[in-house]
Amino acid sequence: MIGTEFFWPLRVYIEDTDAGGIVYYVNYLKFMERARTEYLRSLGYGKQSIFNSELMFVVSSLESEYIKPAQLDDELAATAQVIKLGKAYMVMEQKVYRENETDDERELLCRGEVKIACVDRNTIRPKRIPEAMVAAVTVSTNN
Amino acid sequence: MIGTEFFWPLRVYIEDTDAGGIVYYVNYLKFMERARTEYLRSLGYGKQSIFNSELMFVVSSLESEYIKPAQLDDELAATAQVIKLGKAYMVMEQKVYRENETDDERELLCRGEVKIACVDRNTIRPKRIPEAMVAAVTVSTNN
Amino acid sequence: MIGTEFFWPLRVYIEDTDAGGIVYYVNYLKFMERARTEYLRSLGYGKQSIFNSELMFVVSSLESEYIKPAQLDDELAATAQVIKLGKAYMVMEQKVYRENETDDERELLCRGEVKIACVDRNTIRPKRIPEAMVAAVTVSTNN
Amino acid sequence: MIGTEFFWPLRVYIEDTDAGGIVYYVNYLKFMERARTEYLRSLGYGKQSIFNSELMFVVSSLESEYIKPAQLDDELAATAQVIKLGKAYMVMEQKVYRENETDDERELLCRGEVKIACVDRNTIRPKRIPEAMVAAVTVSTNN
Repeated sequence: MIGTEFFWPLRVYIEDTDAGGIVYYVNYLKFMERARTEYLRSLGYGKQSIFNSELMFVVSSLESEYIKPAQLDDELAATAQVIKLGKAYMVMEQKVYRENETDDERELLCRGEVKIACVDRNTIRPKRIPEAMVAAVTVSTNN
Repeated sequence: MIGTEFFWPLRVYIEDTDAGGIVYYVNYLKFMERARTEYLRSLGYGKQSIFNSELMFVVSSLESEYIKPAQLDDELAATAQVIKLGKAYMVMEQKVYRENETDDERELLCRGEVKIACVDRNTIRPKRIPEAMVAAVTVSTNN
Repeated sequence: MIGTEFFWPLRVYIEDTDAGGIVYYVNYLKFMERARTEYLRSLGYGKQSIFNSELMFVVSSLESEYIKPAQLDDELAATAQVIKLGKAYMVMEQKVYRENETDDERELLCRGEVKIACVDRNTIRPKRIPEAMVAAVTVSTNN
Repeated sequence: MIGTEFFWPLRVYIEDTDAGGIVYYVNYLKFMERARTEYLRSLGYGKQSIFNSELMFVVSSLESEYIKPAQLDDELAATAQVIKLGKAYMVMEQKVYRENETDDERELLCRGEVKIACVDRNTIRPKRIPEAMVAAVTVSTNN
């Protein structure tokens, strides 16, 4: 583990479900991306960095595993945590939990690993992750 | 106007955008539905009523008008407000605004009207909206 | 009516459905857009015109009406037909039918009207629809 | 390899893209599922088997790797091929190619592996894949 585990609350809407009556499995990847985005924003990499930078982060590979299905109207929490940090990429572990109203236990529904490459916005070639970002991601575990 | 105007905050993620660099126009309808859902939950029609009731609400028609586009990472507010109430249907006016960080003015991006029919879950035939729900929707304007 | 009615075949996949066991109502608008896109391609306005032109077509308003729901695995046909042609906009009527295997009757599930504005790609200001396109759209009814 | 490689043609529409101007990486998983669905239909496991059976197939895990991005209006081909067959699951390898108009070469954009579990529709417990289906999937390689 390199970074801290960041939690982002979510609600399941009808748009997220499929005819099986549960969350369409593809949509957990959207939930995970929301958590990644909010995690980076919490470190100061929000709107400004998206539009002003010459860097861009792109998903280069992912894997996910489905344990239990979420249902309409469930309260979820999606997580993001950096578990590997390369020169031009990072790997995040991501989980989706159901919040249970009756007790405080979170129930694990889905987990994934997403490899994100740092590339030049114009050439789409690998580019070093900026020092400040490496520091921000790393330091969060030392607090 | 029959009910009060309910506001629901939203953030634009990459999943919401299209190759034009803006929010895909179809997705504003999802934002509006999230606001409707949260509005009904705020009146006590959340999880329980979804799963325990013999009623179901279905969209029977809608219209929307696009004024300005939202962009990646924008903070939005979607609204829901009952403007017409029939025996077995209601019409909601819905707006999507952009929150501006520099001032307190909301900027109108999109508006819509959505007609929602109350139907029997099994027969899918029109059914009277329960008295308690009519009261909840109506009273909210009198406070 | 100005143009001919163009038909585009579709299949309902799990991605198109929701927890109600039917096609999520928002997704009919995607089906309609596929039909519009293929209609314009059939007139010669495909890939080249999308990327080489200074024009862009954007949806400025729409309305839709839901008659019967489509289900998983249904074969559908979405239509596109120009019913009004302004200097810088056109209105298309669009329908979604279910193809029935047992007979040749199409069953109307959903209809809509979509107003599309022709704008300058850079300024996003209204711009005249090119003569050639007006001719292509109009002539199709005279054959 | 156990089964043959099945190809399914696709077109990229605006609904599939994101603000990066390319296909949103999550949507390749939808393309792969369309190919799986059509592959199974080609073996006789279409509408009837979906609605009449006590079995259900659910995705239990997946991985995907992104090589090159697809763009608006690209013609693609998604593939499905059974590469492993267990008692109650199968693994499909899936690829998404771009068809190039100028030559006959397909360009690999994305590949994935999807593990699909066969479960009882009511209990959601693992259930043996029917003999007939095993035969249909296997025989396709011996032709």
